[in-house]
Amino acid sequence: MREKLILVTNDDGYASKGMAAAIEVARSFGRVVAVAPEATQSGMSQAITMYNPLYLRRVRQEEGVEVYAFSGTPVDCVKMAFDYLLREERIDLVISGINHGSNSAVNVLYSGTMGAAIEGSFYGCPAVGLSLDDHDAAADFEAAVLYGKRIVGDVLADEHPVLPLCLNVNVPKGRPEEIRGIRLARQNRGFWREEFFRREDPRGREYFWLTGAFVNAEPQAEDTDEWALAHGYVSVVPVQVDLTDYGQLERLGKVIKEV
Amino acid sequence: MREKLILVTNDDGYASKGMAAAIEVARSFGRVVAVAPEATQSGMSQAITMYNPLYLRRVRQEEGVEVYAFSGTPVDCVKMAFDYLLREERIDLVISGINHGSNSAVNVLYSGTMGAAIEGSFYGCPAVGLSLDDHDAAADFEAAVLYGKRIVGDVLADEHPVLPLCLNVNVPKGRPEEIRGIRLARQNRGFWREEFFRREDPRGREYFWLTGAFVNAEPQAEDTDEWALAHGYVSVVPVQVDLTDYGQLERLGKVIKEV
Repeated sequence: MREKLILVTNDDGYASKGMAAAIEVARSFGRVVAVAPEATQSGMSQAITMYNPLYLRRVRQEEGVEVYAFSGTPVDCVKMAFDYLLREERIDLVISGINHGSNSAVNVLYSGTMGAAIEGSFYGCPAVGLSLDDHDAAADFEAAVLYGKRIVGDVLADEHPVLPLCLNVNVPKGRPEEIRGIRLARQNRGFWREEFFRREDPRGREYFWLTGAFVNAEPQAEDTDEWALAHGYVSVVPVQVDLTDYGQLERLGKVIKEV
Repeated sequence: MREKLILVTNDDGYASKGMAAAIEVARSFGRVVAVAPEATQSGMSQAITMYNPLYLRRVRQEEGVEVYAFSGTPVDCVKMAFDYLLREERIDLVISGINHGSNSAVNVLYSGTMGAAIEGSFYGCPAVGLSLDDHDAAADFEAAVLYGKRIVGDVLADEHPVLPLCLNVNVPKGRPEEIRGIRLARQNRGFWREEFFRREDPRGREYFWLTGAFVNAEPQAEDTDEWALAHGYVSVVPVQVDLTDYGQLERLGKVIKEV
């Protein structure tokens, strides 16, 4: 049987601890090529680099694992892998992460980790975004690796996959034995309210720094990713990209004159 | 009656021609505050600036129109307006654009224009993203202004609005009299295939530059935004942000073990 080829990327940069954890997950299923940003690209969403040249360098090559650093966004990294670097090969799966910090609820929209996973799913193979609900640079990834392997294993074992398939997986902070299991979930409804941190820089110019709090608009709903995560479960939300609001589409026929 | 307050933003920067066109649309409905990026932020999607301080400056103030330049992304601009600058006021509508280049189909995901419009819709007022299918710096915005006014007028005249409401409006290139009307549409399915433009920089280092072609996966479907635009209509797609793939959610119960 042909060895599987797994593309790994992230938004925290090729040198992050979460990248090593994602490579560990991927390596248990086949050969790994990682193409990840040079430095942190958190919050970069589905951004692409249109007006700058990008540089690629190979950081590391060893048995079954190659790691590249790319100067673009997470989505640029995925495009680089599929459309240039691995153009002649068949990629079987994309793993993006493991992110330092959760990407549940509306955070899927802002997340560079999920931007890259979504992009990967456009190329005809399954894509899994993995995030750990712990922002600490020294976070313990053991549970995320364990559940990452389990979920990726299930996805690769699926004999009748339906594509596109993109999963947003979030793992609670804590030791593996503290996790209560996996919950398939829908994306929680909620939003961020920001408080701009406001100071003067060393030259006396006022600056702003984004900071804020997530407002869960449906804390009681037990079928959401936020609920699962808050209650000690790994949440798995399948993600798609048709943003059409079909409810509004029907209603707007009475509001907007189509002449 | 209280004068309406319209927030204007974009991803091409406060000094772009499309910004002036968007302000013209907005000004016909009330007082205008524009908060837009210092320079181009095309392709920035829903990106937010997490690791840098941001600077705000007032560029212009005249009767009924204030313009601010902000050093962040389009989404940062919207957050700055709602959460700081206009925190004590009620914003009635957000207009993002008018973008130089269309944002139909999957481009809604990469677009900074639509990132900002989507963000605006999170704050409890309608949001309209306006894009013109013409990348030329000297593009003719007359049709986009005309149809922008018509659609924004219809949205503001709606006596029983259902929120959130976010519209992705794309206007074909050409003179107003060439446009055949408005079509409510769904987001076309398609994707980008990239070709990396590859050269050597002045110091002999190889660089890559993103370039590519959009592949319309359903060119025959007459209910999509791509079809409308290609056939001379203004397309209007209502946009929502629950990315949950409910079809997969049901099917995955058999694939992923929830233990």
